[in-house]
Amino acid sequence: MKHSSLTMGQMIKRAETFFAKKEIISRTAGGMQTFTYKEMAERTRRLASSLQRLGIKRGEKVGTFAWNHHRHLEAYFAIPCSGAVLHTINIRLSSQHISYIINHAEDKILLIDEELVPLIEQCRDELSNVKAFIIMSDHKEPPTTTLSPAYNYERLLEEADPNYQYPDDLDENDPAGMCYTSATTGNPKGVIYSHRAIVLHSLALGLADSVGVSEKDIALPIVPMFHVNAWGLPFAGVWFGTKLIMPGPAFTPKLIAELIEEYKITITAGVPTIWLGLLKELQAKKYDLSSLRSILCGGSAAPKAMIRVFEEQYKIPFLHAYGMTETSPLATVSNLKSYQENIDLEKKLELRSKQGLLVPGLEMKVVNEKGVEVEWDGKQMGELCLRGPWIVTEYYNDERTASSFKDGWLHTGDVVTIDEEGLLKIVDRTKDLIKSGGEWISSVDIENALMANEAIFEAAVIGIPSEKWQERPLAYVVLHEQYKGKVTVEEVLQPLSAQFAKWWIPDDVIFINEIPKTSVGKFLKRDLREKYQMDKINQ
Amino acid sequence: MKHSSLTMGQMIKRAETFFAKKEIISRTAGGMQTFTYKEMAERTRRLASSLQRLGIKRGEKVGTFAWNHHRHLEAYFAIPCSGAVLHTINIRLSSQHISYIINHAEDKILLIDEELVPLIEQCRDELSNVKAFIIMSDHKEPPTTTLSPAYNYERLLEEADPNYQYPDDLDENDPAGMCYTSATTGNPKGVIYSHRAIVLHSLALGLADSVGVSEKDIALPIVPMFHVNAWGLPFAGVWFGTKLIMPGPAFTPKLIAELIEEYKITITAGVPTIWLGLLKELQAKKYDLSSLRSILCGGSAAPKAMIRVFEEQYKIPFLHAYGMTETSPLATVSNLKSYQENIDLEKKLELRSKQGLLVPGLEMKVVNEKGVEVEWDGKQMGELCLRGPWIVTEYYNDERTASSFKDGWLHTGDVVTIDEEGLLKIVDRTKDLIKSGGEWISSVDIENALMANEAIFEAAVIGIPSEKWQERPLAYVVLHEQYKGKVTVEEVLQPLSAQFAKWWIPDDVIFINEIPKTSVGKFLKRDLREKYQMDKINQ
Repeated sequence: MKHSSLTMGQMIKRAETFFAKKEIISRTAGGMQTFTYKEMAERTRRLASSLQRLGIKRGEKVGTFAWNHHRHLEAYFAIPCSGAVLHTINIRLSSQHISYIINHAEDKILLIDEELVPLIEQCRDELSNVKAFIIMSDHKEPPTTTLSPAYNYERLLEEADPNYQYPDDLDENDPAGMCYTSATTGNPKGVIYSHRAIVLHSLALGLADSVGVSEKDIALPIVPMFHVNAWGLPFAGVWFGTKLIMPGPAFTPKLIAELIEEYKITITAGVPTIWLGLLKELQAKKYDLSSLRSILCGGSAAPKAMIRVFEEQYKIPFLHAYGMTETSPLATVSNLKSYQENIDLEKKLELRSKQGLLVPGLEMKVVNEKGVEVEWDGKQMGELCLRGPWIVTEYYNDERTASSFKDGWLHTGDVVTIDEEGLLKIVDRTKDLIKSGGEWISSVDIENALMANEAIFEAAVIGIPSEKWQERPLAYVVLHEQYKGKVTVEEVLQPLSAQFAKWWIPDDVIFINEIPKTSVGKFLKRDLREKYQMDKINQ
Repeated sequence: MKHSSLTMGQMIKRAETFFAKKEIISRTAGGMQTFTYKEMAERTRRLASSLQRLGIKRGEKVGTFAWNHHRHLEAYFAIPCSGAVLHTINIRLSSQHISYIINHAEDKILLIDEELVPLIEQCRDELSNVKAFIIMSDHKEPPTTTLSPAYNYERLLEEADPNYQYPDDLDENDPAGMCYTSATTGNPKGVIYSHRAIVLHSLALGLADSVGVSEKDIALPIVPMFHVNAWGLPFAGVWFGTKLIMPGPAFTPKLIAELIEEYKITITAGVPTIWLGLLKELQAKKYDLSSLRSILCGGSAAPKAMIRVFEEQYKIPFLHAYGMTETSPLATVSNLKSYQENIDLEKKLELRSKQGLLVPGLEMKVVNEKGVEVEWDGKQMGELCLRGPWIVTEYYNDERTASSFKDGWLHTGDVVTIDEEGLLKIVDRTKDLIKSGGEWISSVDIENALMANEAIFEAAVIGIPSEKWQERPLAYVVLHEQYKGKVTVEEVLQPLSAQFAKWWIPDDVIFINEIPKTSVGKFLKRDLREKYQMDKINQ
C-alpha cells in the first residue's frame, strides 16, 4: 500500500514539520553559514523544481561533485525525493575514472562545487550524456567556465518554485542513490541504493544498540558525502532532526578540532587516517573535545593503539564499525554486550578494537576457500558474506557482479574471524592476506601491532614473493618527526615477538615518508607492491 | 528479493546466535524459572514443530490465552516464524466476547494457561473451529479438563523436533499477528499485523529517539501480552537480546516493586492504573527502584500529577506514549527536543505530560468535524488520523472498517491538539468529549486536574444530558482511604477554578469506591454513564 511505502520523502518532511528550528551549519569557501531545517526544506523543494525545469525525468541520474556542505545536503534530498537518482561522484578519482563513471551512470545533470569545476572541465569532452552543469557557489553570478550550459545554483533556486510538491507515487524499490567504488583492477564499479535501503539503513543508524543517531546529537560528518553517502549520516540526521555541522572543502586536523570544540559536536565520523591526523593535532595543541560521545570510525581497521590513546588519554569514546560501498555501509558496530562491561580494561579494548556485532536486519556467514562456514572461535579465518535489505545485490551494468554476488550473498572480499560472542574482526582483504609456508598471515594485525609503537605514525605490511615460503611479510613504516633517523629495523620489529609467532615477523622494514592512500584514505597496498617491484628492478 | 524480506525469523535467529547466554526470567504458577536465549530458541523450534505435527498450515490462526511468561514468549515466535498467525486473546473479556473472537478469527489451536482453562471450558460449546487445546503448565501430566483434544505443552515440546527449520519463503506482507480491540458497541474488532509491520515497529522501538530498547536493558513488560503484543516489547526485546523478566499471572503492585528491585529492571511498561497502584505501594513501603531508566506508560493519558510524583519524589523517569491496537501500538513518544531541556521544570513537566512526538516512519494529520486540518497551536482540537507501515488499514472481516479507515488514513477516534513544536496531546476520545453550550470540554483535562489533588486517588468525568447546555460535566471521584468522608464537593471543585473557565467546572461530584475499568485498565466511562442513568431512574 502506497502510504506505508519506505520512501525518502517522509524524511525531509519530518525534519521540516517537527524540527523547523533546528540548524544546519555549513562551511563553504565563503565562510560559515547557518540554515534552519525550515529553510533547508524550502531550498530543497526549490532545487527539486529546478531539476524538473531542466528536464530531469523519473529514474534519471543527477551527479554531484562536491564537498560536505548545505548545498550538497539539499541535493541529497531534492534528487531522490523528486524521483531522480543521486549519484555522488568521488572528486579524488583520476580524470579518466571520473569521466568513466559519469558516462557509465549516464548522468544527465552535474552539480559541481565552484572550486572543483576545473576537474570536470578537464574531462568535459569525454562526457556523452550530461545536458547541464549547475555550479554550486556562494554568489549568484553566472559561472565563468567552459562547461556549457552552466547554471548558477543560487540563481536557479531564486527562480524556482518554493511550493514544489514531491511526487507521492514513488515505489520503495525505486532507485534513490548511486555510488561507485574502486576496483582492484579496471574501472570503478557502481551500486544503486533503493529508497527502501536508505530508509531502513537510517533506522539502523538510529538504533540505541548501533550508532544511536538522535535529535540530541550535534553531528560532524567528516567522511565525504561522495563516499557511501557519508555513511548515511546526512539521511539519518535530517530524518531525526539532528543538528548538522558540514565541514566543507579542504579541511585540516586543526579545523576538525576547532569545529568539534566550537560547536560542541557529540558525534563525528571518518576513516582511521583522519583520526591519526587529529591525534597529531591534539598532541600539538590543547582543545576541549569533551562534548564528543562517539568517534565513529570505519573504512579500514582502526589500530588498537590509536583507539587506546583516544580513549585513555583524551577520554573520547571510539565506535569502531565496518561496512563498504556495497553495504550502504553500516554492517557491524563494536558495541560491547552488557555482560562485557565489567571485564578488565585491556580485554575490553581488545574487544572494542574488533569491528563488532552485526546490525539488526542483516545476515552474515563466513566461509573458507571451499565455501564451508568456519567456526566462530576467533581464530578460523574466512571471507565475510552479507545479505539484507541494505546490502546491494549487483553492480550496476557490470559483468563483475558475477564474482562478488553468489547465491544471494555479497562476498565482501574481506577476510574475518568471528569469536564465540559473534564479534567480527577484519583480518585482511583477501588480496592483502599473506600466504607464508602454507599458512595465512594477517597484514592488518601486524600493522596494528607496529602502530602501537610510540615512534611509529603509520605502517603498512605487504606480502613479497619468496621462493622458499611463497610469500613473506615486508613492513613499510612512517616514523613520527621526532623519531626520524633514530630508530632501527630491529627496534621496530623487536616488540612484535611478544605477540606473534616467529614466522609472522616481517623479514624487513623500509622507512618511508608517507603510506600511499586511496581516494578515501585507505592504505593503497597495490602501490606499495608496485614500488617494491620497481625498487627491486632499480637495485 | 527474498533475503531482504522483513520477516520475523531473523529476530529469533539473532537472539540465538548473538545472545545465546542472555536470560529470560519467567514467573509462573510454579515460581521463577530462568532460560537462556539458546534454550528459548530451541524450545521455540520445538513448539513450531509441534504445531506443524498438529496440522497447522500456512496462514492459519493459533490463539493464545495466557499471562506474560516464557511459554507465551515462545508462542510469540514459534507461531509467526512457522508461517501461522499469532492471535493473542484478551483473557479479561466476557465469555461471549471470548467465543466470538475465537470463532471470528477461526483459531485452529488454542494455547491456554492451566489456571485459565475454566474460562475456555465455559465457552467450549460455542467454539466452532478449534481442533486442539494445548495447556501451558509447569508439569508434564496430561491435562485434566473437559476440553478435548487437550495436550500438555511441556510434553509436546519433549516429543518435538529441536532442529525444526522455519520456512524461508515467508513474504513480509504475510500475516504474523492478530489482536481484537473492544468496540463502543457490539463485538470486538480484529486487526492483523504483518511480518513487515512487526519488524518495522520493533526497529522503531529500538530508536534512541523513541524508547531505545537495547541489549543493555532489563525489561519488565507489565502490559499484558494479550494486549497489542505487550506493546511490541517481547518482539524488540528478543531481537535486540534484551534480558526479559516476565511477571506471570495475577501480579500485584507489591510484586512489581519487588521484581524491579530484585532484577534491577531498567525499563517497564504498562497503563496508568498500574502505576497509580505502584505509587500507593511505594508510599506504603520503601523499595530501591533506582535501576529504572524509564517507565513506559500508555493506553490512556497519564495524569500529570502522577508523573510529577514519580519523577520528583521517586526520581523515576516517565516516558509517556500513545498508541492503540490499530497502531501496533507505538505512534508517539514524549521525549523532549534538545532545546527544550533547558526550560523550567514546571513547563518541562507540562510538555512531558503530553503524548509527544510522532515516531519516525509514520504520518499524521488532525482534522476537525469538516475534515479540515486544524492549526498546530496547542488549542484547536481535532481527530487524530494516522498512517504508516505499522498502522493497520482495516478490521479483519468487519463492516466497521468503513467508519474508521478513510482515504488510507486510520481515524483514531481520539481528539487531540498539536502544539507549535508538533507535540501531540490527547484531549479525549471523540465519544467522551463533552459538548456544553456549543463548546468542547475535555474530560481528560479535568480528570488530570482532579487527580493532582492529594486527597484524590482516581477521577473520571463524563458528560450528562442538559436541556439548557446540551451536556454538562459530572465528576466521579475515588478518595484515598485516609480522606474518605472528610472531603466536600466544594473542596474537590474549588482548586479547578484557577485552571479552567467557569463553564468547564463539573456541576457535581459523586464519591465512589472505584472507577469501573476496561479489561486493559482504561476508565470505562460507558459504565459510568449507564450508572448515572440508572441512579437517575432509581431516584
